[in-house]
Amino acid sequence: MTTLQNPASSVDFDSPEHQAKLADLYRDFDAVGMTPLWRTREGLMPFHPEPRAVPHLWRWAELYPLAARSADLVPVGRGGERRAIGLGNPGLPGDPYATPTLWAAIQYLAPRENAPEHRHTQSAFRFVLEGEGVWTVVDGDPVAMRRGDLLLTPGWAFHGHQNVSDTPMAWLDGLDIPLVAGTDQGFFEFGPDVVRDAGTPHRSRNERLWGGPGLTPVSAAGQPRPSSPLMAYRWAPTDAALAAQLELEDEGHPGVVEAGHAAVRFTNPTTGGDALTTMRTEMHRLRGDTTTRKTRTTASSVWQVFSGGGTVVLDGMERSLEHGDVFVVPSWCEFSLQAEGDLDLFTFSDAPVFEKLSLLRTEVTG
Amino acid sequence: MTTLQNPASSVDFDSPEHQAKLADLYRDFDAVGMTPLWRTREGLMPFHPEPRAVPHLWRWAELYPLAARSADLVPVGRGGERRAIGLGNPGLPGDPYATPTLWAAIQYLAPRENAPEHRHTQSAFRFVLEGEGVWTVVDGDPVAMRRGDLLLTPGWAFHGHQNVSDTPMAWLDGLDIPLVAGTDQGFFEFGPDVVRDAGTPHRSRNERLWGGPGLTPVSAAGQPRPSSPLMAYRWAPTDAALAAQLELEDEGHPGVVEAGHAAVRFTNPTTGGDALTTMRTEMHRLRGDTTTRKTRTTASSVWQVFSGGGTVVLDGMERSLEHGDVFVVPSWCEFSLQAEGDLDLFTFSDAPVFEKLSLLRTEVTG
Amino acid sequence: MTTLQNPASSVDFDSPEHQAKLADLYRDFDAVGMTPLWRTREGLMPFHPEPRAVPHLWRWAELYPLAARSADLVPVGRGGERRAIGLGNPGLPGDPYATPTLWAAIQYLAPRENAPEHRHTQSAFRFVLEGEGVWTVVDGDPVAMRRGDLLLTPGWAFHGHQNVSDTPMAWLDGLDIPLVAGTDQGFFEFGPDVVRDAGTPHRSRNERLWGGPGLTPVSAAGQPRPSSPLMAYRWAPTDAALAAQLELEDEGHPGVVEAGHAAVRFTNPTTGGDALTTMRTEMHRLRGDTTTRKTRTTASSVWQVFSGGGTVVLDGMERSLEHGDVFVVPSWCEFSLQAEGDLDLFTFSDAPVFEKLSLLRTEVTG
Amino acid sequence: MTTLQNPASSVDFDSPEHQAKLADLYRDFDAVGMTPLWRTREGLMPFHPEPRAVPHLWRWAELYPLAARSADLVPVGRGGERRAIGLGNPGLPGDPYATPTLWAAIQYLAPRENAPEHRHTQSAFRFVLEGEGVWTVVDGDPVAMRRGDLLLTPGWAFHGHQNVSDTPMAWLDGLDIPLVAGTDQGFFEFGPDVVRDAGTPHRSRNERLWGGPGLTPVSAAGQPRPSSPLMAYRWAPTDAALAAQLELEDEGHPGVVEAGHAAVRFTNPTTGGDALTTMRTEMHRLRGDTTTRKTRTTASSVWQVFSGGGTVVLDGMERSLEHGDVFVVPSWCEFSLQAEGDLDLFTFSDAPVFEKLSLLRTEVTG
Repeated sequence: MTTLQNPASSVDFDSPEHQAKLADLYRDFDAVGMTPLWRTREGLMPFHPEPRAVPHLWRWAELYPLAARSADLVPVGRGGERRAIGLGNPGLPGDPYATPTLWAAIQYLAPRENAPEHRHTQSAFRFVLEGEGVWTVVDGDPVAMRRGDLLLTPGWAFHGHQNVSDTPMAWLDGLDIPLVAGTDQGFFEFGPDVVRDAGTPHRSRNERLWGGPGLTPVSAAGQPRPSSPLMAYRWAPTDAALAAQLELEDEGHPGVVEAGHAAVRFTNPTTGGDALTTMRTEMHRLRGDTTTRKTRTTASSVWQVFSGGGTVVLDGMERSLEHGDVFVVPSWCEFSLQAEGDLDLFTFSDAPVFEKLSLLRTEVTG
Repeated sequence: MTTLQNPASSVDFDSPEHQAKLADLYRDFDAVGMTPLWRTREGLMPFHPEPRAVPHLWRWAELYPLAARSADLVPVGRGGERRAIGLGNPGLPGDPYATPTLWAAIQYLAPRENAPEHRHTQSAFRFVLEGEGVWTVVDGDPVAMRRGDLLLTPGWAFHGHQNVSDTPMAWLDGLDIPLVAGTDQGFFEFGPDVVRDAGTPHRSRNERLWGGPGLTPVSAAGQPRPSSPLMAYRWAPTDAALAAQLELEDEGHPGVVEAGHAAVRFTNPTTGGDALTTMRTEMHRLRGDTTTRKTRTTASSVWQVFSGGGTVVLDGMERSLEHGDVFVVPSWCEFSLQAEGDLDLFTFSDAPVFEKLSLLRTEVTG
Repeated sequence: MTTLQNPASSVDFDSPEHQAKLADLYRDFDAVGMTPLWRTREGLMPFHPEPRAVPHLWRWAELYPLAARSADLVPVGRGGERRAIGLGNPGLPGDPYATPTLWAAIQYLAPRENAPEHRHTQSAFRFVLEGEGVWTVVDGDPVAMRRGDLLLTPGWAFHGHQNVSDTPMAWLDGLDIPLVAGTDQGFFEFGPDVVRDAGTPHRSRNERLWGGPGLTPVSAAGQPRPSSPLMAYRWAPTDAALAAQLELEDEGHPGVVEAGHAAVRFTNPTTGGDALTTMRTEMHRLRGDTTTRKTRTTASSVWQVFSGGGTVVLDGMERSLEHGDVFVVPSWCEFSLQAEGDLDLFTFSDAPVFEKLSLLRTEVTG
Repeated sequence: MTTLQNPASSVDFDSPEHQAKLADLYRDFDAVGMTPLWRTREGLMPFHPEPRAVPHLWRWAELYPLAARSADLVPVGRGGERRAIGLGNPGLPGDPYATPTLWAAIQYLAPRENAPEHRHTQSAFRFVLEGEGVWTVVDGDPVAMRRGDLLLTPGWAFHGHQNVSDTPMAWLDGLDIPLVAGTDQGFFEFGPDVVRDAGTPHRSRNERLWGGPGLTPVSAAGQPRPSSPLMAYRWAPTDAALAAQLELEDEGHPGVVEAGHAAVRFTNPTTGGDALTTMRTEMHRLRGDTTTRKTRTTASSVWQVFSGGGTVVLDGMERSLEHGDVFVVPSWCEFSLQAEGDLDLFTFSDAPVFEKLSLLRTEVTG
């Protein structure tokens, strides 16, 4: 056993002489870009996550009219690329970011409008709250967008959108823009100004190849892909799966996440993992009068009310939920939902990132 | 560089004296169970696979009446367990094995009959050529069996069958019995004498939970399983996927295995791998007049004609194919199919075993 | 709830008429190669593994002199390829197999002898009980063989051996010949008649590249291989690792398998898995007076006493262990070791095969 | 083919009226935290990474004296925790970050000093440029720190340091603090004020268990870990591996990354992957007069000259390299090294993060 002793222990740290020397040192540190950990440790390494992002809720009743107004004033075209309006977390001023890793936006396409093709390393999806008439063309494959559908645009896939109907359509866009921007991983490239295949098939080619449960084309078998080859997760099977979980609960069989709470995750059939490499996407359904356990996780997430109403409690802050409302759950924020009647919500999060890095923590708090 | 020299090189190996010494040595080897490699190498380690199993074809028109006859003479019950009759490869006399790893059988259940529950470490499936009215109950979950369906019984899952109809039903059973028997990996256990759940639901519980494309219950997500949690692969989506591949070919898009040849693999949605741990299961469809490339692989396989007719060529031996016919392709046997009209075939093989052991080889030979 | 009933239930099964019909049926079955499961189920699907292979022990004191005698009578050369004498399990007559999956042999190389190069899909290794002076040349890389070393020959790597010394050398060869032969996966090819690199370096090239703990050449990083790129596991680090486990036990820290029982597994640095795709290789050390727990597993294994002595109990059969003795533990055989003084044993098994197929079972029985 | 048309196409966008409406819209967006993508796209989604972090080099000759001065003025103890001074990239003012994901610091421990135990989810390592006499105690296991060694502190492992010598010691610390801080994944916990085991063994317990090449304790086998169980990568084997690669190049065998350029990656023996979950660590050696290919990658990295000298070119900026110098290579910065005499460099990067997320891109540019 060695006796340890700090050499500086006999110094009078409060003396003016010492303080002057310290000030000199810190000035010299500064000159070469050095920053002492002992002056920054608490900020850099808190005892638990202390996100700048705050819990926040946007009303669909406010968002949608603003998006619609912009359609009269701003064209969609090359350069701006999309009539998408990002939801900026009040805790992250300056950045139009929902959380430090996630971007959420309303995208609005007026009748007969077209959004040009491009591609980027950022992963993206669209979730359709209401409406139809738009096809998103992913790597040349036109994919219909309809109420309740989740449509993927994996990283580096070309994509554009066209509205072939006489009514406008709006939806939720989710991307990992903040993660990719903050870590300098982004590439972007323009494609054709108009979608390369203006077809409007009921079922896209990727769905015809990959849309059967547990069915893999032999020509593509045994080749895991980082993101799903299936670009459309349709509302009908999602709805049926959620309904089935609750019915199985009534029949005394497993399936639900917790009492009265059904949920499905959208997954990549070539691996069984998340449909996108950096974002988890799920649909949740609560029976009327169900309250979920209070939980918190280091993943941050964004939720949208698909149908029904209720209440969300975020670190004790209670907010009512109405059709289309979007809210953010920052890292380590205590979270619970309460349904009035049946309540369906779509959600996406950055959980896959932190699972892959062995950083994700989740706990039930109440 | 060292000069090498065999010490025995000056010996006269043909001398009677030497031969006598050798005979002595071999006798002494034998006494302690020693066998010289130099006398057995060619048999043990051939230049390429030289399977004892031979290409062989059984006619459904012969198999089915025999199975039906047995129903009048032999009851189904505890001990014998199943009215299943194994197809023995003529090259493997004594063992009722289709190949060194695969067991294939016709199982026949008379009207109102019941096959008692049991479980075993062997993986199993049923493929339904025709008929309906039977439910197989897998770990307490009744699964309807209908024409064109593939039904799984993963290793160690309890299972029994019941025919609730007034007509008999027969199907193809596939198991890895020879592999498990030959390597001493088998366990077997009796369950209830009658299936534990006599329900006859249209859709089993596992299908309700896992039957949506790319949809994973959140309560089970992130937990890969060695075999599929989905126990039924229904004919309708299989048929649609095969049809879509051929339509996509007509439209100029990828999907088929080769010209005029569509195929889907039944996969485990929790991993994207094969539905069963030891057996690959697939459905193939050839357009009329299509001839497949000649290939050979070290996997052995069994095929059944589901619909249509044509010809199979196995190491040059040509056989016509008719409804329900079953044939065996041994390891390294050159194999090609020719369709007359549309030809649908179900197949299973031991390929996953040798993929996992880095032993599988496949080549196109013509 | 449906009432189930076997249609044949009213038949008098013992009547001569019925027996005659049955005999007819079985004859007809036989004619087309059909075998009823109900007459074979117990043999094909036993309640637990009932291996034909039996526990068996060979005395090194018997094996070595026989191997030496063969050197005077049989040359090593093209065709026979190796002076290797396989140990045939008495329960597997006709096949020179230690277990249904494993081949174990003594290989003997006389002074200045050379064993020609060949390659095969079978995985192989050499374990050196005693002696030195031989280099095994694996894919052109000469690897010294010395006491206590494990030397790998992964599947399809060319290899030959040369003895550059004036003394003979014998060692234990292990291969997966029975597994590969029984499943028709074997390919074999001749190489040069004399090893292509007659160098005798102290350290082989693969050791120079891969022999540092946790050090991966950047030029090969991120590319998992099915078997180890490190071909030699030297006695010195193996010995040190075993010694360290026992010392850590004395110091109150984890490391040993159980009290007084140290063991290391030879692993593939590119994956952390077993060094060979189909065979597990390990070195075990028991302190004097240690008795291991009784266990049984569905893997079969072969063991060789490297140093020290003691006792092995195999399904209740007790045998003394002496220097170099080789014994076989069949599937599901209860197994325990007892050390007199310190006891070191090398072992190999087929466990990786059944782990990958989710078939492996192991239990502690006492 | 549908004709597409932007509804706003007939609007006069430059009219004052339109501009006023737009201003109103943007004010209303702002009020609810909405930000239009069309005004921010180029910044959020550049055509290629445009890092704020800049290439930068710090001279060891400047850093070390400043670190030494701080030892006279600032004690090491609870709260500040470490006498570590972070190197702040000039492009990232305000944050003491080397890159958006990596933190690099000089840590200095005076004679007989002790740095208290703590743990955090951030992964960490120490690389020792010179000196010895300090033991870092990781989860209770004292690990000697000596010249050329890499010492790991995986996430959530308790660790403290003690200098038992009469000379100070300084080293390079690397952590993923910016990544963890920016994504709100950090947890931190204090441990004992003095290291819990003041022993000074030559070899730590983890080295005794895991330090043999390809040797895995059977008690821990078959259990992949997210980070390495081996906490110390010693200079002697690293040096030998680098020397061997260059010797093999001279002998005409593969091993080096490119002509004259040897490199080893520090890896996790339980998986073959990177030693730490979020950071890649490597040691590089260039022969005298070697110039490496110009490359760029989306990973950002920090390098330290371990011995020798030369030149680094970062996006065309050329800087001389001297003993101990530290430099930063931001994402997508073109990078090349030139050695005068032999040149050894240690480096760490965030590459594993982006490999796991399928975002990493690397290209050779010259």
